[in-house]
Amino acid sequence: SSGGGSAQDSLYFQSYADVSIHEEMLADTVRTDTYRRAIFRCAAALAGKAVLDVGAGTGVLSVFCAQAGARRVYAVEASSIAEQAARIVRQNRVEDRVQVIRGTVESVELPERVDVIVSEWMGYALLHESMLNSVITARDRWLKPGGLILPERAELFVAPISDLVAEERLNFWDTVKGQYGVDMSCMAEFARSCVLNGEIAVHPVTVEDVLSHPCRFAQLDLRTVTLEELKRVSGAFCCQCFGSSSLNALCVWFTVTFPAEDMPPLVLSTSPFKAETHWKQAVLYLDEPVDVRQDTKVEGNISMYPSEKSSRYVCIHVDYTVGEHKQKSKTFSIPDGHSEDT
Amino acid sequence: SSGGGSAQDSLYFQSYADVSIHEEMLADTVRTDTYRRAIFRCAAALAGKAVLDVGAGTGVLSVFCAQAGARRVYAVEASSIAEQAARIVRQNRVEDRVQVIRGTVESVELPERVDVIVSEWMGYALLHESMLNSVITARDRWLKPGGLILPERAELFVAPISDLVAEERLNFWDTVKGQYGVDMSCMAEFARSCVLNGEIAVHPVTVEDVLSHPCRFAQLDLRTVTLEELKRVSGAFCCQCFGSSSLNALCVWFTVTFPAEDMPPLVLSTSPFKAETHWKQAVLYLDEPVDVRQDTKVEGNISMYPSEKSSRYVCIHVDYTVGEHKQKSKTFSIPDGHSEDT
Repeated sequence: SSGGGSAQDSLYFQSYADVSIHEEMLADTVRTDTYRRAIFRCAAALAGKAVLDVGAGTGVLSVFCAQAGARRVYAVEASSIAEQAARIVRQNRVEDRVQVIRGTVESVELPERVDVIVSEWMGYALLHESMLNSVITARDRWLKPGGLILPERAELFVAPISDLVAEERLNFWDTVKGQYGVDMSCMAEFARSCVLNGEIAVHPVTVEDVLSHPCRFAQLDLRTVTLEELKRVSGAFCCQCFGSSSLNALCVWFTVTFPAEDMPPLVLSTSPFKAETHWKQAVLYLDEPVDVRQDTKVEGNISMYPSEKSSRYVCIHVDYTVGEHKQKSKTFSIPDGHSEDT
Repeated sequence: SSGGGSAQDSLYFQSYADVSIHEEMLADTVRTDTYRRAIFRCAAALAGKAVLDVGAGTGVLSVFCAQAGARRVYAVEASSIAEQAARIVRQNRVEDRVQVIRGTVESVELPERVDVIVSEWMGYALLHESMLNSVITARDRWLKPGGLILPERAELFVAPISDLVAEERLNFWDTVKGQYGVDMSCMAEFARSCVLNGEIAVHPVTVEDVLSHPCRFAQLDLRTVTLEELKRVSGAFCCQCFGSSSLNALCVWFTVTFPAEDMPPLVLSTSPFKAETHWKQAVLYLDEPVDVRQDTKVEGNISMYPSEKSSRYVCIHVDYTVGEHKQKSKTFSIPDGHSEDT
């Protein structure tokens, strides 16, 4: 499950060798500013301490840690972007404190145990890419007892939604006759089977489309979670709808929380109720829309686990009941080509 | 070069089995309306005649031909969307005139020679997907001497442009310090090597960014062009800039022209000066921007040919000179994942 060297890992690390993905992550100010504030808030805990940055990328978090007072930062990065990280470290004159190490965190040797681990490991639907496994492996190998992990906690949320993106796409086939004089309404069923398939769609969900308060269905304490537990992250949910609507999907998102001594904890949220991030939301389309009204219960269980065909791809299995309808199940996965993000 | 059966062809036809690509093509009203008008304009030539639709997709062009008076339309389609085409034909009550045949046009057997071939075969930069080869093969096998081909002619154009998309992406790295306090200006060179690589970028070009009148560098007469000639489509170009600007790319696009008896010919244009289509424009980034001023000549030669690694992928080789600068050359190709379109 861990360790470098597989063809899958090689492809995975290659995807971080291009500039685009780093541009997208840095341009996401919610992401980068929250990490920056979280790191500077921990200045007292970082002062004179050793830090391990897991999957350092361009090294931005490592430089933040050095600027915040860390004595030594090990910036571990397996992809060739590590070369750029080393240049950035020099350009920011922190090369005496930040050491860029090219390799996987599973195989790297550090000269000491560290006081702090920092990592931006979250993928689509939190667990896509399975990078959390590397953070946990790093914790078990290199973090001193009682050491700090940034972020420290992750939470997964779900809410029923009425997603117009899919509905508008499906309605298109009824408009063709008016447009061109050729009736294509018989495409509806085929279009439905393509659009509402078992793919995890990643796009921004509009607040108005969310049909209930969110329900947290899982949380992970990064100080204690085990690799064994990450093989299946699951939990129950129960949502009560605000009012009458047509429910056609479940929306899944996450938050991660940074510890902050005496201050209230800092939360990086990818909720549809907050500012958009590059993670957007994960949308799971039901096979057909269901009418709900005020207080209709949408409840069930969600299970997330690595795909069998590629362990870096996340699968989401949902058992759900809407109101008095009988229970249904559907399994979703990330389509090819949408493979990488951080 | 032709004929079905290869793994590449199998992947290619699979990409047309999903609903999304057909939705995009039909939603492109410039494309579909121009074909519709062109077909109905030819009503006199179609009346009582046999038509072959090469790569019929959902069958929309075949139904147009039947509605315009064709006696018999052979709608040949290799992908599984053929099943939907057959349903659409029945729903529009033209099943007595339109016969959907699942197979490649290279392998199919028709009961007669046809009077007309219609096909929407154009890909990005006109020749991506190499589908024109199938149309020419169909012409040589099935079109009666003097028969009609819709469209009948294709033309390729080029113009120098000042593309802001790339410039803004490259400027991003100079803004990181102001945003987060980490200087990443040293990423500029690496970013330039990633962003201005040899990929054919496909995006809409703004009229204001076009630096000269377009120059036609190649044209194909579909009545006479040979498969041998399609192995390399090339031609010279010479553009004179309107005024002072920073030239950083060449923009390539195409038109196709429909014959129209006594009326002026009907042109489907993908020019940046016309309404946007799903083909957008093909943008070829130079390695570095060059300053131009009024009457600076941008001239050279453009060659288009199938990629060695996959014959459905188009490559574009450009030899060019800007003003008094010495001649440069660059070869471009369509990146993976951008593989399919019609």
